[in-house]
Amino acid sequence: MRAAFYQGNETIAVGECIPVAPGPGDVRIRVAYCGICGTDLHVYHGKMDKRVQIPQIIGHEMSGEIEELGEGVSGLRIGDRVVVRPLQPCGSCPACQRELSHICYNLKFLGLDTPGAFQGSWTVPAHAVHRLPEAVSLEQGALVEPLAVACHDVRMAELREGESAVVIGGGPIGLLIALVARSVGADVLVSEIHPFRRKLAEELGIETVDPQATDLERFVLDRTAKAGADAVFEVSGTQAGVEAMTKLARARGRVVMVAIHSQLAQVDLFRFFWRELRLIGARVYEPQDYERAIAVAASGEIPLQRLVSATYSLDELRRAFQEMESGAEVVKILIRCSE
Amino acid sequence: MRAAFYQGNETIAVGECIPVAPGPGDVRIRVAYCGICGTDLHVYHGKMDKRVQIPQIIGHEMSGEIEELGEGVSGLRIGDRVVVRPLQPCGSCPACQRELSHICYNLKFLGLDTPGAFQGSWTVPAHAVHRLPEAVSLEQGALVEPLAVACHDVRMAELREGESAVVIGGGPIGLLIALVARSVGADVLVSEIHPFRRKLAEELGIETVDPQATDLERFVLDRTAKAGADAVFEVSGTQAGVEAMTKLARARGRVVMVAIHSQLAQVDLFRFFWRELRLIGARVYEPQDYERAIAVAASGEIPLQRLVSATYSLDELRRAFQEMESGAEVVKILIRCSE
Repeated sequence: MRAAFYQGNETIAVGECIPVAPGPGDVRIRVAYCGICGTDLHVYHGKMDKRVQIPQIIGHEMSGEIEELGEGVSGLRIGDRVVVRPLQPCGSCPACQRELSHICYNLKFLGLDTPGAFQGSWTVPAHAVHRLPEAVSLEQGALVEPLAVACHDVRMAELREGESAVVIGGGPIGLLIALVARSVGADVLVSEIHPFRRKLAEELGIETVDPQATDLERFVLDRTAKAGADAVFEVSGTQAGVEAMTKLARARGRVVMVAIHSQLAQVDLFRFFWRELRLIGARVYEPQDYERAIAVAASGEIPLQRLVSATYSLDELRRAFQEMESGAEVVKILIRCSE
Repeated sequence: MRAAFYQGNETIAVGECIPVAPGPGDVRIRVAYCGICGTDLHVYHGKMDKRVQIPQIIGHEMSGEIEELGEGVSGLRIGDRVVVRPLQPCGSCPACQRELSHICYNLKFLGLDTPGAFQGSWTVPAHAVHRLPEAVSLEQGALVEPLAVACHDVRMAELREGESAVVIGGGPIGLLIALVARSVGADVLVSEIHPFRRKLAEELGIETVDPQATDLERFVLDRTAKAGADAVFEVSGTQAGVEAMTKLARARGRVVMVAIHSQLAQVDLFRFFWRELRLIGARVYEPQDYERAIAVAASGEIPLQRLVSATYSLDELRRAFQEMESGAEVVKILIRCSE
């Protein structure tokens, strides 16, 4: 089989690799597709060189079929079509003790802290595996991981039918949040500066606004009978997004912090006090979010294929990275990992 | 009767005043005591000159006895010992429509947007009145308003028995939050830089730490089996408090924003994401918080008298303001409003 190795310095080498035999409790999966995540781009640019072990096989947004079961694995069979929830919690830290193992204090992320899925065959703990129903194709399956992020974010927002939601930032995760929010019956608006992303969202039936051309606060107030939005998702990772989030939420509205703000941000804490706003941090997913994402994918209510801009072979992985960062009109690129 | 008028420019004039006859739905209360709130000091320093109408009678942390009932008032009698929840919502805005009238978009605060309680007789809407039981003295009653703030903050935190709470800032509200948090069975720590405030908290049985002398984060981790605190109350209004709040909370811990941050603050939003922290804005109180505060006062479990540093006559109001801002060892000063 073949595997793609990140070698530092924006270099990817694709070469032959020997499959890892599953140990007790593990399964070995023939990887069908693996999508490229923003985190993978971060690794490619050397921003996580302290965390990854070079040469590192990355990738975690995958789908595939089980090829081999380790000792003691039950409930899964060879040939099962599956996806992987790429989290390996320690099981004993304060978060794990509180049933918050997805934010374990010693969490290992499969594909960052361990080898990832940009290879023909991936060996992972069986507890991380979720089965795909017939109705979900392997291409769609490769989108379950980011879809589960969106399901987690919408669940953390406790978003209900008939409520209004604003998503600040219409990249892949923002778009999926908007689609999941719509699937629970919310009235959704995406704020996004890039015309391509707005166009795609509009084609998917999501209303959009360009915050550089329109007064976003007034626009949201006009849509919500002067109340403000019930829920705001900050997915932009920008200071402008942080400034908008406190202006857009209604009294006791929920602001979900989805984006990774690597710098301290200037936040209007007075507005949190004055309006009794709630800020809700939301990171990755819990098992129920994966199950919900798979059910949403199976229902067909979200046109996941429309988010796939291109599919490339493993040998083309570097080209795909370059395309994603080129400003090209790309949402999600899938990599075929086994031929 | 006499009344104290704020005349701008740190000037208070005390003079004769005619009681306001209660209109339909109003009651006129003989004011026994009125405490000085931080907001009153703000007014005294001219920081709210745009909001108040000079000459303005301020004050709202009061207790008294009903002397006169307006037309159509039921459920209250002359002679009732009462306190006032000094909020006048509009009844029709998006917050009022959602049963969040305490954060009404057009809220009038009695004693800021209307005449206040630093006078012998205060006429207010009957809906704002809560009766005091026998067990609560009029001196204690004057502390019900700040105690209700603390009850609201602790309720918003959903603090439960056995949980750990850190209060950042040990002024009057921080101290009351600590006492209410203890009354629900939480393990409470107050972080406070001023020795006098730490000493008072310790005398009331609340553990304290000086964050300038001790590594607060390590101290809290050591107390909480490395988890972090279940709830953190930011009452300091300082950047140092904002930096501490995200470090001290456990995975999915609640950070309650009590302080008024008049400037944008530098906030570690990454930590909100990473630990799935919740920030909960909390402002004033709802009727149930007043009822809870009165019940807590009646129970005697919180030694409210210990928070009263001095009691002065209305003629001494300016002296009391000066004493509060002098850095003197003062927590709460009560003013006798009728002789």
